[in-house]
Amino acid sequence: MAHELSLLAHIAKIASGQSAAFPRVLLGPGDDCAAIATPRGDTLLLTVDQVIQGRHAPSPSRGWTSLNNAVDHLSRDELLNLYARKAVARSISDIAAMGGEPWCGLCSAALPADFPPDASRVLADAIHHWGQLWSCPIVGGDLAAFAPAHDGPLLISLSVIGLSHGSPVTRAGARVGDKVFVTGTIGGSLLANGLGRHLTFEPRVREGAFLRRELGPDLHAMIDVSDGLGLDASRLATASNVGIHLHAAQIPLSPGVREVAHAISDGEDYELLFCAPHAPASLGDTPITCIGEVVSGAGVALLGPGGQTLDVSKAGWEH
Amino acid sequence: MAHELSLLAHIAKIASGQSAAFPRVLLGPGDDCAAIATPRGDTLLLTVDQVIQGRHAPSPSRGWTSLNNAVDHLSRDELLNLYARKAVARSISDIAAMGGEPWCGLCSAALPADFPPDASRVLADAIHHWGQLWSCPIVGGDLAAFAPAHDGPLLISLSVIGLSHGSPVTRAGARVGDKVFVTGTIGGSLLANGLGRHLTFEPRVREGAFLRRELGPDLHAMIDVSDGLGLDASRLATASNVGIHLHAAQIPLSPGVREVAHAISDGEDYELLFCAPHAPASLGDTPITCIGEVVSGAGVALLGPGGQTLDVSKAGWEH
Repeated sequence: MAHELSLLAHIAKIASGQSAAFPRVLLGPGDDCAAIATPRGDTLLLTVDQVIQGRHAPSPSRGWTSLNNAVDHLSRDELLNLYARKAVARSISDIAAMGGEPWCGLCSAALPADFPPDASRVLADAIHHWGQLWSCPIVGGDLAAFAPAHDGPLLISLSVIGLSHGSPVTRAGARVGDKVFVTGTIGGSLLANGLGRHLTFEPRVREGAFLRRELGPDLHAMIDVSDGLGLDASRLATASNVGIHLHAAQIPLSPGVREVAHAISDGEDYELLFCAPHAPASLGDTPITCIGEVVSGAGVALLGPGGQTLDVSKAGWEH
Repeated sequence: MAHELSLLAHIAKIASGQSAAFPRVLLGPGDDCAAIATPRGDTLLLTVDQVIQGRHAPSPSRGWTSLNNAVDHLSRDELLNLYARKAVARSISDIAAMGGEPWCGLCSAALPADFPPDASRVLADAIHHWGQLWSCPIVGGDLAAFAPAHDGPLLISLSVIGLSHGSPVTRAGARVGDKVFVTGTIGGSLLANGLGRHLTFEPRVREGAFLRRELGPDLHAMIDVSDGLGLDASRLATASNVGIHLHAAQIPLSPGVREVAHAISDGEDYELLFCAPHAPASLGDTPITCIGEVVSGAGVALLGPGGQTLDVSKAGWEH
């Protein structure tokens, strides 16, 4: 893990050299998306995420060919639909976290050697279905099967290109005195329906765009909570060069979730965490909750009801 | 294989429905790239390709950790550099085939369980190196390791976004009476240096852009020869609803290649095949050869020196 963080730091360093060489690069790696200028002045948001069987999604226990009941009560095709959904949703959530609009997507998939022909069609249908549903047509792709001697698990890589109407909302603009808000509820990514919200979440595109319009330049910083509220808040704090205080009693927990400590480290909530000097107007069905404030200093402290303080900067999944 | 072709036809059908629903989609799957309009009127070209160890690139025989000499005389790091090079070059070649300019790229990689930490850095450096060299900064990525229980081979997926200055040059515009040209030489993708040109080719970006400028609207159709001259000519012919005659004696063979029949089915040349009513001006170092003509009808016929005719529409790799 330390190795991967050092690698990411290394990549950020290489990439920042590249950004200097290519003025089109407005924002390189390190935020939810990269931002690129087009010649006529549009700002593109770019992101890519992978969903790997056995790593980011449950795996069928008996291989794909013999599969009738893959994961508990799910059929093979239901499972494939959830893989596809998660692959598309994760990348779209990154666009939402910059306040952007999904524009189109590219998908590559690598198929296990025993992957049945009709399953490929189910997977392709599902990827296109979710892209279309979230206004992100999948316009191109690459499909390959692993060689039998070098077999591997099902892998879907989804690149999404979005548009930023104005400057992208990054992680870096939070100011001391801002309030910290979160959409929806936190925790329970592995609970709901026995499936886990991590497979069924709704990317917060509408909410991200609304916040951008409603708060305008007061929307100082935003991130999607993919790896845990503590860890993602810490990333935002670090990028903004500030500290964050979270109030345990104010964190809105998902149904069935009891412990704040679990909720803020579970990850895969895909809610939006953002900083602004005041609350936005109501977002309709999606609750917005003030859970803390931006302070000078560094790191993320969770303040308990009795006044106790816990460093939760590392509460989450560093993968 | 029949299954994959029927799947691709199925995907093209889904995607064409999506294009109707999203006017931004100028060109969906089926050509070298998709083409997308931005709000201010830029035309983006989008493509994604995968390089999979053991499928598209040679595999180290003894796993990554124990690796000193991976493939014949290559060191591990030389091999990784070639993987990275091929991943970036394949996608950029697709941009070249539409006459476009590479603008930026996204990379996702899945690493085998035994992949050594320092190898990740070598791989990341190489991907950024080749992107920068070909004016295609890699602005974002996703790195994941296979779970040990679901291990797989090294896989690199590279999405490239390009720009089309004017309408993209597709496969569909060839007209009866056009001449058929090819850049460079054909065949020998597995010969050169014992490495194979398929790992070391230069994507024809400069040539594609030159042809577009030089021939203007006379550049009727273009494709890159990735799967075999016969098969790719056939794809162009089908998309244009014409036939193609190739003259065996005129096909420029790579050094060391003797048989035309092999050369046109080997694939991985990554040369540009294009149709125009007349030859363009000289391209400097890169030879351009007239190898045939567009005729009414369908399919690709190879005409031998004695007047014999061979159907080569399927000469190539359908993967």
